[in-house]
Amino acid sequence: MRDDNCIFCKIANGEIPSATLYEDDDFRVILDLGPATKGHALILPKEHYPNLYELPDDLAGKAIVLAKNMIKKLTKALGCDGYNVVQNNGEAAGQTVFHFHMHLIPRYNGDDAGFGWKVGELTEEDKADILDKIEKSV
Amino acid sequence: MRDDNCIFCKIANGEIPSATLYEDDDFRVILDLGPATKGHALILPKEHYPNLYELPDDLAGKAIVLAKNMIKKLTKALGCDGYNVVQNNGEAAGQTVFHFHMHLIPRYNGDDAGFGWKVGELTEEDKADILDKIEKSV
Repeated sequence: MRDDNCIFCKIANGEIPSATLYEDDDFRVILDLGPATKGHALILPKEHYPNLYELPDDLAGKAIVLAKNMIKKLTKALGCDGYNVVQNNGEAAGQTVFHFHMHLIPRYNGDDAGFGWKVGELTEEDKADILDKIEKSV
Repeated sequence: MRDDNCIFCKIANGEIPSATLYEDDDFRVILDLGPATKGHALILPKEHYPNLYELPDDLAGKAIVLAKNMIKKLTKALGCDGYNVVQNNGEAAGQTVFHFHMHLIPRYNGDDAGFGWKVGELTEEDKADILDKIEKSV
């Protein structure tokens, strides 16, 4: 399954060149052109699925195992101190290309990746409301 | 396999109470006490593995499929517009509890999650250096 208007379909399938770190029948791993840190890579499936909601379970499983193997290999190669594995779904979540991808962001002690989020508080009111919404939506 | 000094072992196995959204033989999904947004949840395996580097492949696969199923269910329940799925490895990457966990961060259009990272540039020099390091470390 391909989307002819999707740039990640073209990159994943080798029609647009990329700095490729790994390739197999299902995936290509490339360097991100807008890296948070040196070595920031993307896992792209060769087939087109817009996000994790629609990715088949077998490919999702293969993607996370590939992420594990890549960060093990890249931690050694790059000499980094940790990794963020990030997968964004939807424009509201910062997804800009609507072809499933997983970010592998190497982290170095004291780097300036600017990675993170605001830490809030789980109030009793929010907790009750969330649990209630989940119960009602089943 | 358990670590008696690990708070997430105790939470995952029900020895410390939590706002539990889901539970099966392998995992517990709870609300994060420091949520980026309303509904921010964590997937915790019941067995202790410090990070993705050390998580067995079968559990990694189950975790991402559970993430998929949870975000589908929670997007409907919470009425959110997207999801960040995030998994941090190592102190340098912002990991604070060294028991593998996956963040499910619901995103709402215009929310103030503060989620993101600095976008840099992939220079030709960095690209060549990274590819060289990977080749040499094989």
